[in-house]
Amino acid sequence: MKIAGILTIGDELLQGFTVNLNAAKISTILTKRNIIVKIHLTVPDNVYKIKEKIDKFISKDYDYIIVTGGLGPTHDDVTKKALLELFSSKIKFYKSWDLKLQARYRQRKLKVKISKCQSEILDNSTPIENNKGTALGMSIISKKSNIIVLPGVPIEMEDMLLNYLNLKDIKEVKDNIVTINTTAIHETELSKMIYNVMSANKKDFSFSFLPSHTGVKIRISSIVDKIFISNIQIKNKLNKMRDIKNKIKSIVSDYAYSEGSVSLEETIAKLLINKKYNLSLAESCTGGLISKSLTDIPGSSLFFNGSVIAYNNIIKQNFLNIKKNIIKVNGAVSSEVSELMATNIAKKFNTNIGISCTGISGPEGATLNKPVGLVYISIFFLEKVTTKEFIFVGDRNLHRIKTKQASLYMLWKLLNS
Amino acid sequence: MKIAGILTIGDELLQGFTVNLNAAKISTILTKRNIIVKIHLTVPDNVYKIKEKIDKFISKDYDYIIVTGGLGPTHDDVTKKALLELFSSKIKFYKSWDLKLQARYRQRKLKVKISKCQSEILDNSTPIENNKGTALGMSIISKKSNIIVLPGVPIEMEDMLLNYLNLKDIKEVKDNIVTINTTAIHETELSKMIYNVMSANKKDFSFSFLPSHTGVKIRISSIVDKIFISNIQIKNKLNKMRDIKNKIKSIVSDYAYSEGSVSLEETIAKLLINKKYNLSLAESCTGGLISKSLTDIPGSSLFFNGSVIAYNNIIKQNFLNIKKNIIKVNGAVSSEVSELMATNIAKKFNTNIGISCTGISGPEGATLNKPVGLVYISIFFLEKVTTKEFIFVGDRNLHRIKTKQASLYMLWKLLNS
Repeated sequence: MKIAGILTIGDELLQGFTVNLNAAKISTILTKRNIIVKIHLTVPDNVYKIKEKIDKFISKDYDYIIVTGGLGPTHDDVTKKALLELFSSKIKFYKSWDLKLQARYRQRKLKVKISKCQSEILDNSTPIENNKGTALGMSIISKKSNIIVLPGVPIEMEDMLLNYLNLKDIKEVKDNIVTINTTAIHETELSKMIYNVMSANKKDFSFSFLPSHTGVKIRISSIVDKIFISNIQIKNKLNKMRDIKNKIKSIVSDYAYSEGSVSLEETIAKLLINKKYNLSLAESCTGGLISKSLTDIPGSSLFFNGSVIAYNNIIKQNFLNIKKNIIKVNGAVSSEVSELMATNIAKKFNTNIGISCTGISGPEGATLNKPVGLVYISIFFLEKVTTKEFIFVGDRNLHRIKTKQASLYMLWKLLNS
Repeated sequence: MKIAGILTIGDELLQGFTVNLNAAKISTILTKRNIIVKIHLTVPDNVYKIKEKIDKFISKDYDYIIVTGGLGPTHDDVTKKALLELFSSKIKFYKSWDLKLQARYRQRKLKVKISKCQSEILDNSTPIENNKGTALGMSIISKKSNIIVLPGVPIEMEDMLLNYLNLKDIKEVKDNIVTINTTAIHETELSKMIYNVMSANKKDFSFSFLPSHTGVKIRISSIVDKIFISNIQIKNKLNKMRDIKNKIKSIVSDYAYSEGSVSLEETIAKLLINKKYNLSLAESCTGGLISKSLTDIPGSSLFFNGSVIAYNNIIKQNFLNIKKNIIKVNGAVSSEVSELMATNIAKKFNTNIGISCTGISGPEGATLNKPVGLVYISIFFLEKVTTKEFIFVGDRNLHRIKTKQASLYMLWKLLNS
């Protein structure tokens, strides 16, 4: 079992301006590879502190020391300086990286002077290239430790760490933790439904519920009480875990749309592509959020034709062909208008599926009979239209997210029916 | 000037299942009160580690040591045990809290057995009551340090910490840190532009650049090098800071759209509402993201009429009135099509402003002459249309975010011209 320490650097973290997403992300990546993270540590952009802490980590024989932040070109980026002092090493200019950056900028027709320091690393290090940004990372071996130094920008950091671990053949251990993603059900209900399964297995497995505004994740992890455990024991345990997972999935099958990191959007995209359906949307209160979420998926042009965002009633009338009188009698936030929006967008954009929503996200817009939080969602599918009414609690942002999730859940149920 | 260390406890944090929101939240609260956070540290639910680290913090004379997590009733909550061992103290049952909890449950008609441990604290501590949950917190004075022990649930932790600080009359200091938000410019350029201002003031103020994919934040904070500083000195310093801020803002005025936590979307929303303009969008590659971002703002119905998301070329033809031949000759990703999209949506939806974008977010869609990353953005404004070409590096997600930000930046420039 390998152990690791994570050192994140930056005044912005200590002053609370930035949430430390990197520490959590690195921990997730290492935990999946059975590397135990012993500590998270954050220090300021201060040469002395950075030196002191890395030195301490090395003295504790951590196999991996992951350092992020302070690699940029400005004066407060001092990580490299600290490492130079700590190892009494020198700067090495990594020319091939500079050339790559130059080529990249030429391709983009940008005339920016590339800072040389982006291609500078320590002479006792090996470079880690950066596909998503400019600053090089590096790996330094010292005593028993591999010190992996990465930029602080999360998207760059993650890509570089994953590439480095793959290169070193440090692979994810499958199934030592599994996650079942559910939506449209409360954790208390879920917990009741699977209580017996949890009770019967609580000695060897731990179960947790991670609720968010889009649903609840059920996590099953294998409790390892010994550091040394035989391969056969591990295999048996993983088999048992798979059985438990399948049991739970069948109990909560109405709500469990995927496992692991697969989103509801991805699940739906796959179903739509397989079944060769296409869809269009008429969004009101969500203002484009549902379309945006679906087009986040690469390849979404295979099933997504387009949308009308009809924020204004005139647009509902003129472009979704909803008669003025229908809006006047029922209100724009009504099942009648919602139903017509879904049906008419599908016809207009010539798609199998039409999705609509109209609601009051607040803070303004409530009336005596229609509170903030009210929303109607309709789906036109196979020539039939289904409409549901919801009242979601929470602020404007939450209301929109919950509306998005509920509409995708409705679509997922229809596609599976 | 007081200094603090933050110790967050929990395997969930080290395994990456939970992002450490508490450390950031505590830092924000303390920074606003001019208390300097020197370190964030996360350790597992382990008695020895917790003892060791708190002891270390005390030996470093931290004025405040904030400890969160591990106060609950389950087997892995060991914080109290660690503190009992560290201070060789005893458990004290805080009866009045137990009675309060009982009354609270009675009021909610809940028949839950209250765990006695929720009302137990160390006999050398003073209790910190918990309005949002059940576990008591406590404050322990040891040598020069005040150790404030709080539960790990963020909403409880925050409420208790704020109440405690208010009770001790430790108040927020206004304006000891300011942030200038910029976009469309690299941190290296910014740093060059304001180099002289920074150099002239680096003794008393610290300057930092926080880059993200939507722009760079310039942060100015006041360096306090003396523990004892008079109110007049503080006032003078804040005045000087305001002067520096205004100087920097005027130097980078082409890029600086706001201060503090005000987003580009909010800045634009305010301008549009003031000038009584309204807008509509024809989005292609962004799939609704720009509309979504603008409608995130409460009150956006005052300026946002609606959008057409024309992902499919048929929709560009039929609903944005772009002739098939124009698309055939120039391609859907072209300045010609982009320009027509912006102009036609403004006319169709009868708005002063029309914004469009058409690009290749990837991973598919590139051609020999048109690489992944290419995008055209057009804005129809006051009967004129402006079109710009960009090539953005990064994955699909980044491409969409950068396109959103660039289009809003173009709009902001036009509104200010």
